[in-house]
Amino acid sequence: MVNMRFLFLAVVISLNAFSQTPVDKIRLYRAQNERAILADFFSFLQIPNVATDQANIGKNAAWISEQMKAKGIKNVSLLTIEENNVPPVVYGEMNSPSATKTIIFYAHYDGQPVNPAVWAKGLHPFEPRLLDGKIEQGASFQSLDSSSFPLNKDWRIYARGASDDKAGVMAILTAIDAINRAGFTLHYNIKFVFEGEEEQGSTHLSEIIERYKSQLKSDLWIICDGPVHQSGYKQIVFGARGDTHLELKVFGPKTPLHSGHYGNWVPNPVMALSKLLASMKDEKGRVTVKGFYDDVIPLTAAEKEALAKAPAVDEELKKRIGFSAAEMDGKTLNEAINLPSLNINGIESSNVGTIQANVIPASARAVIDLRLVLGNDWNRQQQKVIDHIVRQGFYVTEREPTNEERGRYKKIVQVKRSIGDNAQRASMNMPVVKKILDALQQTSATPVLLIPTLGGSLPLTILKEKANANTLIIPIANYDNNQHAENENIKLINFWEGIDMMAAIMLMKL
Amino acid sequence: MVNMRFLFLAVVISLNAFSQTPVDKIRLYRAQNERAILADFFSFLQIPNVATDQANIGKNAAWISEQMKAKGIKNVSLLTIEENNVPPVVYGEMNSPSATKTIIFYAHYDGQPVNPAVWAKGLHPFEPRLLDGKIEQGASFQSLDSSSFPLNKDWRIYARGASDDKAGVMAILTAIDAINRAGFTLHYNIKFVFEGEEEQGSTHLSEIIERYKSQLKSDLWIICDGPVHQSGYKQIVFGARGDTHLELKVFGPKTPLHSGHYGNWVPNPVMALSKLLASMKDEKGRVTVKGFYDDVIPLTAAEKEALAKAPAVDEELKKRIGFSAAEMDGKTLNEAINLPSLNINGIESSNVGTIQANVIPASARAVIDLRLVLGNDWNRQQQKVIDHIVRQGFYVTEREPTNEERGRYKKIVQVKRSIGDNAQRASMNMPVVKKILDALQQTSATPVLLIPTLGGSLPLTILKEKANANTLIIPIANYDNNQHAENENIKLINFWEGIDMMAAIMLMKL
Repeated sequence: MVNMRFLFLAVVISLNAFSQTPVDKIRLYRAQNERAILADFFSFLQIPNVATDQANIGKNAAWISEQMKAKGIKNVSLLTIEENNVPPVVYGEMNSPSATKTIIFYAHYDGQPVNPAVWAKGLHPFEPRLLDGKIEQGASFQSLDSSSFPLNKDWRIYARGASDDKAGVMAILTAIDAINRAGFTLHYNIKFVFEGEEEQGSTHLSEIIERYKSQLKSDLWIICDGPVHQSGYKQIVFGARGDTHLELKVFGPKTPLHSGHYGNWVPNPVMALSKLLASMKDEKGRVTVKGFYDDVIPLTAAEKEALAKAPAVDEELKKRIGFSAAEMDGKTLNEAINLPSLNINGIESSNVGTIQANVIPASARAVIDLRLVLGNDWNRQQQKVIDHIVRQGFYVTEREPTNEERGRYKKIVQVKRSIGDNAQRASMNMPVVKKILDALQQTSATPVLLIPTLGGSLPLTILKEKANANTLIIPIANYDNNQHAENENIKLINFWEGIDMMAAIMLMKL
Repeated sequence: MVNMRFLFLAVVISLNAFSQTPVDKIRLYRAQNERAILADFFSFLQIPNVATDQANIGKNAAWISEQMKAKGIKNVSLLTIEENNVPPVVYGEMNSPSATKTIIFYAHYDGQPVNPAVWAKGLHPFEPRLLDGKIEQGASFQSLDSSSFPLNKDWRIYARGASDDKAGVMAILTAIDAINRAGFTLHYNIKFVFEGEEEQGSTHLSEIIERYKSQLKSDLWIICDGPVHQSGYKQIVFGARGDTHLELKVFGPKTPLHSGHYGNWVPNPVMALSKLLASMKDEKGRVTVKGFYDDVIPLTAAEKEALAKAPAVDEELKKRIGFSAAEMDGKTLNEAINLPSLNINGIESSNVGTIQANVIPASARAVIDLRLVLGNDWNRQQQKVIDHIVRQGFYVTEREPTNEERGRYKKIVQVKRSIGDNAQRASMNMPVVKKILDALQQTSATPVLLIPTLGGSLPLTILKEKANANTLIIPIANYDNNQHAENENIKLINFWEGIDMMAAIMLMKL
């Protein structure tokens, strides 16, 4: 690999000598500091970041604060509320003397809950690892210390938060560091907001924004989260679907019973839950819950036109993901994510596999994930599903059933409603859109796409309602990042380009 | 409690002086040795007994062998086959010089697999505990060492195997010990067979019987396993349902995917599995698999008549178990267990609860338990269900699907077939039935019931086919014993009466 390294150094020197564009300078800084940037990223990923893990959430916030101060960011502080044990927002500023406008750069440092047992051999959510490809394709483990730099850009970092969304935090911090070191002048004020509770539904973000309202004033929020388009094209995303959950628990016998002595006489809760879930979709994958697709505000002509410019990826994706036909008959991916969805996140009753036992289980649980589009209200959408459950003959309760309820009702389900978040979609006509598009296009050889909505969810409604914020999402992660699941990862090229993208936006004139 | 103890001693002395019946003598022996019997039982229950746990299975077999020798049982040996790691049958004999007939007393020392995490607080499957009632009703933990004897007969012992079926092993061993110490003469030869693989479907019992065919000749097998009638009445059971399993795994994306970005476009395997399971029963709880209820040989008039004598327990059971209406509309418990059944033992996909994540899971698994009645064949019954699955549009495979299969089939399920066992039902006309009925009636103030079949399963077909055996089941456990589940237990009165019952049968004249 010696020749490669010489070649690389030659390129670096030539870039150094003749580079013209700010993006080139950012890239040069990154290339010269790759090892140190990754070492920082690894130390960040080593801190467990499930939002309910208070001690570690505090460590994440402290780590970010230190990094921000070291990178010259001013007024670094933790935004908290009076309630204890709420993950703080880590805040900072980079002001420009003559600026009149302000953009907030947002990312979140918490990650989805983890089940280390299901991660691939050699991986652990909070022990970041470098691999020379995808683990599902037999990639090998590599060492950060003994590898030659620059690393192959197709290598990946595996850890919870590697892409969702510590990559966002790191891309923003590295971009501002590169800008400061290169001596660039900013043309607007930048504020930094790093949230620690996004994956728990941003439960306290409203209160935090309420408390720091004047401090969090801005003209725009840039949300650095989510994956780039499946084609690999960069994208500006104007909104995100809303999200809410229902947890269902169907009851069988008070204690698990011997399936031989009581099977088919005592009702089986898995069968009842299966019938309930099955009733929620027809054979064509369409949700049968009454009124489920009502309320939807359709895409505008401009939005449809922008969407049509995105490369077709469906057939390629089907091959990679490993399925032959969409759950909703004939719907494209773009059509599907512009509709409200009902997805089962998980189900559990008794045991399968080596500890399977011959029982009628005492209960069966499932979690339903409802994604919402513009026009849906999360409370109303939950209620439609609950009404459907009642129509299937279930007695719905918020608690474990009493003996009296068990004696009265044939089918009993406990339903726990989670807090929800509605969808948002910013207008494509905002003047800033053109400027960001131009900035991003400088970092990209392929066209930057304008996409009306992300399939995933972000706390955009809270930002809209509490901070009166306009929001644009600038995703950077690879689409095959196993986000929210085991073996989460980010491809190095996506991390590197994420830094370029954040820097390009930070350097634009407003 | 001093007064109670004096009273008890007075009763013991009076029984000692005036007792007439052999059963009284057995009871006296037990009452005098209660503490030692329970100490032995506890040390037995402390040895983990899942059949796949080779090291501990060996310890169980060694423990039983030692006990048998100490109790004067002859020719104690382990019956094994050449294959390694097969749980041995522990064998022994008590011969009577002039006897011409032989009865084998059978029980099994292995237990169902355990998930310690779901046992109640303070309980562990292999740390037996004494409680002064049912744990679900808030009973208190008691100490064997510091309690006054005799213990309250409604107290319970909690541990895996406490009732299923180490209680059977202990009742048989304690009965023969009491008989020997009281100096009774046996009127027939007794052989002891303690199996160590019953809960795994008696996978190697056929081979063991084949190898030790002449040694295992007998006129009858007494199977000491299962619960007494729910009314508390003792029963002679003439048969058991057969049993077999299918494990289903439905496939979604190759790796779990973000439910926002792909939900309702990429098919959800939980939804597909739910629809499949739901298709197997109609709204009245009747199995819809084509031909499922064919082949059934109905009960004879005599069997129906005997069954009609069993006290009605359905309404009382519904209250205790906590449900309002049978899964099969209008069917009584007796009707239900005289039909083949389809029960879901467990289901699993991704996670629910605190580690729930917003994903489309990669797969969903369920285990189906098929119970069989006389006339059913386990292979044929499995095939009916698999044919049903195919009719629901599934591609059925025995392996994980290839990329090519993923690309070709919309719905894919991996089906694993387990080994099965057919139902058996002995004739009520065998002359020995009357003798056993008389013997058991001596131990019981309530009528002893004659019940055509147990809802649960036992390796009766293997015994029939390989050992040409007639079999009768004499259950001793309380019906509410949480058999096969967490918090398994036996009530002391059932253990004590189990000893009486085994001794009464051992002492009968053939």
